[in-house]
Amino acid sequence: MKKRNCFIGQSGGPTTAINASLAGIIAECIDTQQFAHVYGMINGVKGLLENKYMDLLEIFKSTEDLNHLKHSPAMYLGSCRYKLPEFQEDPQTYQLLFQLFNELEITDFYYIGGNDSMDTVAKLSTYAKTIDSHIRFIGIPKTIDNDLMGTDHTPGFGSAAKYVATSMLEIAYDSSIYKLNAVTIVEIMGRNAGWLTAASALARTAYSDAPDLIYLPEVPFSKKAFLEDIHEVFKKKRSVIIAVSEGIRNENGEFLDSDSKYAKRDAFGHILHSGTGKVLESMVYQEFKCKVRSIELNVLQRCAMHIASAVDLDESFEIGRYAVKTSMAGETSVMMVFNRTSNNPYTIECDFKDVTSIANLEQRIPVEWINEGHNDITQDLYNYLYPLIQGEIAITYENGVPQYANINHLKND
Amino acid sequence: MKKRNCFIGQSGGPTTAINASLAGIIAECIDTQQFAHVYGMINGVKGLLENKYMDLLEIFKSTEDLNHLKHSPAMYLGSCRYKLPEFQEDPQTYQLLFQLFNELEITDFYYIGGNDSMDTVAKLSTYAKTIDSHIRFIGIPKTIDNDLMGTDHTPGFGSAAKYVATSMLEIAYDSSIYKLNAVTIVEIMGRNAGWLTAASALARTAYSDAPDLIYLPEVPFSKKAFLEDIHEVFKKKRSVIIAVSEGIRNENGEFLDSDSKYAKRDAFGHILHSGTGKVLESMVYQEFKCKVRSIELNVLQRCAMHIASAVDLDESFEIGRYAVKTSMAGETSVMMVFNRTSNNPYTIECDFKDVTSIANLEQRIPVEWINEGHNDITQDLYNYLYPLIQGEIAITYENGVPQYANINHLKND
Repeated sequence: MKKRNCFIGQSGGPTTAINASLAGIIAECIDTQQFAHVYGMINGVKGLLENKYMDLLEIFKSTEDLNHLKHSPAMYLGSCRYKLPEFQEDPQTYQLLFQLFNELEITDFYYIGGNDSMDTVAKLSTYAKTIDSHIRFIGIPKTIDNDLMGTDHTPGFGSAAKYVATSMLEIAYDSSIYKLNAVTIVEIMGRNAGWLTAASALARTAYSDAPDLIYLPEVPFSKKAFLEDIHEVFKKKRSVIIAVSEGIRNENGEFLDSDSKYAKRDAFGHILHSGTGKVLESMVYQEFKCKVRSIELNVLQRCAMHIASAVDLDESFEIGRYAVKTSMAGETSVMMVFNRTSNNPYTIECDFKDVTSIANLEQRIPVEWINEGHNDITQDLYNYLYPLIQGEIAITYENGVPQYANINHLKND
Repeated sequence: MKKRNCFIGQSGGPTTAINASLAGIIAECIDTQQFAHVYGMINGVKGLLENKYMDLLEIFKSTEDLNHLKHSPAMYLGSCRYKLPEFQEDPQTYQLLFQLFNELEITDFYYIGGNDSMDTVAKLSTYAKTIDSHIRFIGIPKTIDNDLMGTDHTPGFGSAAKYVATSMLEIAYDSSIYKLNAVTIVEIMGRNAGWLTAASALARTAYSDAPDLIYLPEVPFSKKAFLEDIHEVFKKKRSVIIAVSEGIRNENGEFLDSDSKYAKRDAFGHILHSGTGKVLESMVYQEFKCKVRSIELNVLQRCAMHIASAVDLDESFEIGRYAVKTSMAGETSVMMVFNRTSNNPYTIECDFKDVTSIANLEQRIPVEWINEGHNDITQDLYNYLYPLIQGEIAITYENGVPQYANINHLKND
């Protein structure tokens, strides 16, 4: 007799790997033969508060179905940007959720997301203990930013890194064709952590040494040093290619585009940057009066499934499977993590950590992995990043474009 | 005894297919066993005036070598943006070029490029007749803009179109996840012709109907109609996705971003646009006060080889082969073209036309292929575009990124 019922949710921004973790959880639930229902919350906890969920076992019945889900971008279950209130301040929200859990006889709760989602897992599991609930709450990390504490790296990062490295290489080829002085600035996502910008260094090959300069948010940005760096590169070559994090800050901690008219904030009050490349573009043009172009990689970094990393998708699937094993072993209030057991050959193992001790903490690049000139990364950081982008995936195409999962359920109101 | 020697050059902006045409020309030169030397000019005619060229038969010896070239982005021979002067005004430039042609006993001259390159072919072949030179001058078209007259479509367009359609689909998935009103504006290349923007319609699948609205430069852009269009879409759905050409103009023929501080001009005096998406972004935000994002696909449209169209690369290779057959048959002063002989099944044949009659003319979307509301394309245009993005290619990856051709020769001074 099947005795378990679980909820799975996705939250925060999309990555190309978040559906792989969802597929891994479903696959393991099926394989254990212990689950009567595997419910997917639609639009995360916020959707759950409106009773929006679906039964995933009715949709995903075969390995083929799950494989298709694994290779679909964005978030099959939809997302929310919702900060769960402190339960002392708003007990009703918690009562509403746990009432639903009781009705559906939920035993396990899996939430795939970034820092804000881990905060949700921490709060729900802490509340559960106060009411003596035995539901197990498990967080499965994902973020293209790679900034979650406690794990070697995050699911989703490797695919975004592969997109960044491949695009950087293709931009370098594109920039090679004219015989004139030119500066190309590639603006890469990463609010506080420069991991994804650093991954642009993986574009370097025997025929292309771009990016020539890399600027990260972990060290202060100096306009003077920046222009001097470009002068130095121009002594050796005509086409200078620069990778820059959207989140670089000057010596006073101010964002370069803080006065931009496009500056916006998300639901958590985080500034949404989009102008750093443009600010640098004018800075460079004023100094060098040469051809300058800034390119913002934008959301394609997190949704370009067609160039995802096979290592990333496989690991993201496995960490989903392992989340089910972990809750069935009796754990709760934990976030799943990767431990790197060897770098050459690259091997990792899944593990878990107390989510309350790591939620809301940020993992940034250690300064010793940034070069002395603050304009490149060290070999150690390269070696850390390298294994994460390896391997390509086979996407199914239909009518000339990728054939991704049916997401029509996200359109219903 | 091998009696022929040829020059091949590439000019204008890069496409992912221009090296396929180069590979096709080299392959056919080898197969005829008539060519002693196949010279590649480095950085086009401008490089030739500085005596910069290389012997391609020393580098490309096998089918494998040529296949690798076919699958490399940007321009193996480098490019120039150089307008050949009228020969009445500057006979010296022509004398210099033809002196080199005589020294190297050149019999055939192949120039792969867009409108400005076809102008070069027209001028050189016209001059050749005045001095009784028997060199054959052949233009091979390429442009992601698909705006050359006289050919069903241009090499390079299909791959750019496949990138645009795939990216649009992935952006649509990315935009599907939140339950809130949002407008996403995707700005697509195309100065005067909207072909590439129209190709975004190929992103539509059973699960995704983006783009909801398409704005093309062939019809005047009205702010009022634009905002009304969005209001209409919002009646049916939360997430509105818009494809817009960088070159849209208002009723007075003015570009939307003509007062942008980023407005620049290229060597031919064409305005380089980059602000249309941003202008629309603020327009939409002022009206709807909802989440608005603009995404500029930028140069990745023309260099993302990893998602090239197999149909496009194969055709671009074949038109290169056919260019050699054409000059060997005694033709000169022609541009190679495609004739579509059937659309279902899709079949084309290579042909050629007098280059002097088509250089500098622009092929734009016929107004009858744009819907009455001026915010979408018709089924006829969809049917025209559809065959061009079919088929995927197999890229070789090394260290997690694509392994493209050696372009170190472009870095030497």
